[in-house]
Amino acid sequence: MRLQVFAKNQEKYRKMTAEIISGTSIRKDILAEVKADVEKMKAEHGKVPGLVTILVGSSPASISYVTLKVKTALSVGFKEIQDDQPDDISEADLLALIDKYNNDPEIHGILVQLPLPKHIDDKKVLNAIDPDKDVDAFHPVNVGRLMIGGDEAKFLPCTPAGIQEMIVRSGTETSGAEVVVVGRSNIVGKPIAMMMAQKGVGANSTVTIVHTRTKDLAAHCKRADILIVAAGVPDLVKPEWIKPGSTVIDVGVNRVGMNEETGKAILKGDVDFEKAKEIAGKITPVPGGVGPMTIAMLMKNTLRSAQLSIQG
Amino acid sequence: MRLQVFAKNQEKYRKMTAEIISGTSIRKDILAEVKADVEKMKAEHGKVPGLVTILVGSSPASISYVTLKVKTALSVGFKEIQDDQPDDISEADLLALIDKYNNDPEIHGILVQLPLPKHIDDKKVLNAIDPDKDVDAFHPVNVGRLMIGGDEAKFLPCTPAGIQEMIVRSGTETSGAEVVVVGRSNIVGKPIAMMMAQKGVGANSTVTIVHTRTKDLAAHCKRADILIVAAGVPDLVKPEWIKPGSTVIDVGVNRVGMNEETGKAILKGDVDFEKAKEIAGKITPVPGGVGPMTIAMLMKNTLRSAQLSIQG
Repeated sequence: MRLQVFAKNQEKYRKMTAEIISGTSIRKDILAEVKADVEKMKAEHGKVPGLVTILVGSSPASISYVTLKVKTALSVGFKEIQDDQPDDISEADLLALIDKYNNDPEIHGILVQLPLPKHIDDKKVLNAIDPDKDVDAFHPVNVGRLMIGGDEAKFLPCTPAGIQEMIVRSGTETSGAEVVVVGRSNIVGKPIAMMMAQKGVGANSTVTIVHTRTKDLAAHCKRADILIVAAGVPDLVKPEWIKPGSTVIDVGVNRVGMNEETGKAILKGDVDFEKAKEIAGKITPVPGGVGPMTIAMLMKNTLRSAQLSIQG
Repeated sequence: MRLQVFAKNQEKYRKMTAEIISGTSIRKDILAEVKADVEKMKAEHGKVPGLVTILVGSSPASISYVTLKVKTALSVGFKEIQDDQPDDISEADLLALIDKYNNDPEIHGILVQLPLPKHIDDKKVLNAIDPDKDVDAFHPVNVGRLMIGGDEAKFLPCTPAGIQEMIVRSGTETSGAEVVVVGRSNIVGKPIAMMMAQKGVGANSTVTIVHTRTKDLAAHCKRADILIVAAGVPDLVKPEWIKPGSTVIDVGVNRVGMNEETGKAILKGDVDFEKAKEIAGKITPVPGGVGPMTIAMLMKNTLRSAQLSIQG
């Protein structure tokens, strides 16, 4: 009897620590699934998804992003074309190049690494990509399809798609859940808000979108069963704003300093992770949370594009 | 002194009745503004906006909708083509017709009256309209532009645009306001939620979208400074759910019976208007509220399309 009471008290006062939703680990699972589907496609149809990455110029950051995409694409068995172009390529030539890949039946995804040189109109170039090969899903047609929802949505933009995947794979119930999205960017806030409000699996949530003009940010966060923070402000969300047991997705990647020994940037999310993890039920870390998911969803979109092209 | 106290009590116990936001009256203002802009365009550029309404078949309801659009377009000084086609027009011929108007520089807006006969694919036909002439704004490109926001959005879908116009013209502050949208349709709920959350005048609101899966509908409605109801359920919103002094926009048009004398349908909104108007600060009636706005916004979109084409 005494032992039981003791155990009960232990349970009560035990420090509850949130389950960490690891993007690194989920990415690994997704890439393995994509690879298996590619092998199946190859066996059944004699085809593999094709992805082209177009890099204009030689900015070290851009090269490093493109290299990671190329390596990942090859690791899952895609046909990958790395198409490097000089800094002084004309806009017309770049548009012609995109047109070539738009018409290439072996290419299912076209990526143009940003930023482009100043003499080229980014928007014009991105909008020239065939929406059915726009695996980044930033083309207005794909943004529209996302909002229309249902079967209409072919590709979802990679970061929001990664967030939804993490929520679902963590076993968080979304139907009827109160979702609060902090931030209204075109890359994260607006699309994830719309995706979570849609009908369907992994969605059906009651969604609130809050931002810089919101009067009582704290009150909104406090009622969130699922809190998605994409504000770009380190430690914006205070631990006391987190509903106990909720799922917290931290999209922020803020450089707050430099590690003098390694020379690497010190990264911090928009949520005070160390304290928040004692309150939340499930939480994503920074780094190692949402960040690693983006590239996995890019591969998933390219696979889907190839699957849709086979289905005709 | 006594008189002052008396006046104070009178003030306190006075039955507060909401200001009625009349769609019929705002429509009149908007059409007058459009007409003035058309006259200006004619004087400065020798051109007027051109609208074509394509009607396939002869359903009485469709004829009545088209007739109203034609009459309104002519009343504001547009060039109007009413292009009636037989029930058995082939899909290919209809697509060719749309292509003709897509390439006609005197036409700035193309409307295809729905429903189309069963042998024609609605979606294929609507998506064939040049997005820059899609004044209904249902094409995925225009849906995407709406979500991207800012300068990107050329036309807004007519009913949500009408709602936003009513909110602004009623003098309701939107920046930082709590907006709750009941319903997540593609025609009203999702677009108006996205529009109110955007940066800019008449927007910048904190927006919550609630729907059939929402757990505590009442609690959400109660905190709304601006409550937009588009659920299609008569009297769904109870008077006690309305925040005192709030602005209530009722988009529901529900036929709840028939007037035996006139033979006309009895219409009711999604909000219990008679009781709600004693609590809300501003409220739209049904009928005479949001309904009449749609056609005015259609004319405004066509004018804008013509203005954009002149600007090049």
